[in-house]
Amino acid sequence: MKTSLMCMECNIKQVIKLSKLLNISKEKQEVIIKKIFKELSEVSFEKSNPEIMGSITWKIITETTNNKNPYKEIKEYYNQALLDVFQDIKNVVLTSDDKFDTALKIAVIGNVIDFAARHKFDQNTVFEMIEKINEIDFVIDSRKELIDQLKNCKQLLYIGDNCGEIVLDKIFIEIIKELYPNIKIYFGVRGAPIINDVTTEDATQVKMDEVAIIISSGTMFPGTILEKSSDEFKKIFNTSDIVIAKGQGNYEGLSDIKRKGLFLMLLVKCSYIGDNIPAKVMDFILKENKLKS
Amino acid sequence: MKTSLMCMECNIKQVIKLSKLLNISKEKQEVIIKKIFKELSEVSFEKSNPEIMGSITWKIITETTNNKNPYKEIKEYYNQALLDVFQDIKNVVLTSDDKFDTALKIAVIGNVIDFAARHKFDQNTVFEMIEKINEIDFVIDSRKELIDQLKNCKQLLYIGDNCGEIVLDKIFIEIIKELYPNIKIYFGVRGAPIINDVTTEDATQVKMDEVAIIISSGTMFPGTILEKSSDEFKKIFNTSDIVIAKGQGNYEGLSDIKRKGLFLMLLVKCSYIGDNIPAKVMDFILKENKLKS
Repeated sequence: MKTSLMCMECNIKQVIKLSKLLNISKEKQEVIIKKIFKELSEVSFEKSNPEIMGSITWKIITETTNNKNPYKEIKEYYNQALLDVFQDIKNVVLTSDDKFDTALKIAVIGNVIDFAARHKFDQNTVFEMIEKINEIDFVIDSRKELIDQLKNCKQLLYIGDNCGEIVLDKIFIEIIKELYPNIKIYFGVRGAPIINDVTTEDATQVKMDEVAIIISSGTMFPGTILEKSSDEFKKIFNTSDIVIAKGQGNYEGLSDIKRKGLFLMLLVKCSYIGDNIPAKVMDFILKENKLKS
Repeated sequence: MKTSLMCMECNIKQVIKLSKLLNISKEKQEVIIKKIFKELSEVSFEKSNPEIMGSITWKIITETTNNKNPYKEIKEYYNQALLDVFQDIKNVVLTSDDKFDTALKIAVIGNVIDFAARHKFDQNTVFEMIEKINEIDFVIDSRKELIDQLKNCKQLLYIGDNCGEIVLDKIFIEIIKELYPNIKIYFGVRGAPIINDVTTEDATQVKMDEVAIIISSGTMFPGTILEKSSDEFKKIFNTSDIVIAKGQGNYEGLSDIKRKGLFLMLLVKCSYIGDNIPAKVMDFILKENKLKS
């Protein structure tokens, strides 16, 4: 989906966040934002915001500050924070009436951990949401289609989104493996650090390689921009019977691709994406993004 | 005070607000924001944000949409909404133990009505705040200095901020006139419509001319940029024994001018201005902006 005015605000918010995080001087802030404004004044709004964020905003900030991975400690912290409660959450899944459905919902709950978007993450938010898991309903609900297709699935690509969240993705993938042991599972990550998005390094921290083959997009976008991804990533994307793409960034990159088996799974965090789906902020979405038959 | 990254975000927010209000097409939004980005990429951050907002963001939006006064109806609505309760609020003042102090506090409460800044205005906010008026404390408190100086004041310039709010300014000015009948009072307004700021037309709607001589800054800035104001405005500013400047826009424009009798009166609405004062968001401020002796 195309970028928008609201996305421009989010780009500026990211500069503000990083300026605080990295204690960037006022003089350097001015240099950075002006470079960004210059490029934004010339970019095509046909592009999706993850592409603009990666190729302009993030690139300029990280190059100007000479810091390629400013969220490194924060990403590690959230990965570890969720790893610390891995077994507790896994037990919630294992003792539930429907392991698949509970693990799926918890994976979407994990999408609340996102430093890029508008909503703040509170350490307790995940647990509070899990307590109310029975109240969760999917506003767009392709769970039936996903379960149907898993039965005959040979290869699945699960594209991750944010650190911390990936621990909950891992639990869901474990349940998929348990129920459908013959599926070859890939876990898609970003090709380079961008915001709090998962990279190979981050996925390795949570031992995602125990349950899936980690595959990098080959790009530094906080979302999946398929045409710019590596040939290997594209091949896996195209040959997978099922693709589960987590979060807003992957939604923004993939929402214009209509195909059977492409499941966009997210918590809606901003009204611009909400309007596109259509859904409201904080709605749960599992949308098979195929052409309407 | 200089502009900042956070002010840039507020500029973008204003474009988003106006795009919704005027139902601007996505294509035109892109044209507008890119023109703005181009100019912001070249402007000096030594300037205050009201100057940037007026000379770049607001100018480009209103010229591109050919609409010089997009908040016209909203401004009239808030003026009338507050006029409708004028006598009720005046009675609160007249029946209070300290008319001057109550009217002053209510004038600051009126500063909550602001479409430009980060906090949303709820119709009941003013009344809820008036109910709790006894709990209000000034974090920076030059009330004693103001009262002392009013005793010998011959000329007072009261620089308004937003529509709606000006009705409460009028009540305060009425009380000043009652207590100090010999003061010549000017009411400063913007030289052209900008956001919801008061112009001569808006001041006339609330009959401000009954209590003060209306004087325009001669500029289209949502704040007082003295060096760019008309000679007449500058003369009145410089010859007034007391200047009371309401709101953040006037604070941003005037905070670097240190002189006896310049009182900056506002409710803090953003942390950037808060840090400059220093104070917190929603703090009440009455600051005589003189050189420390």
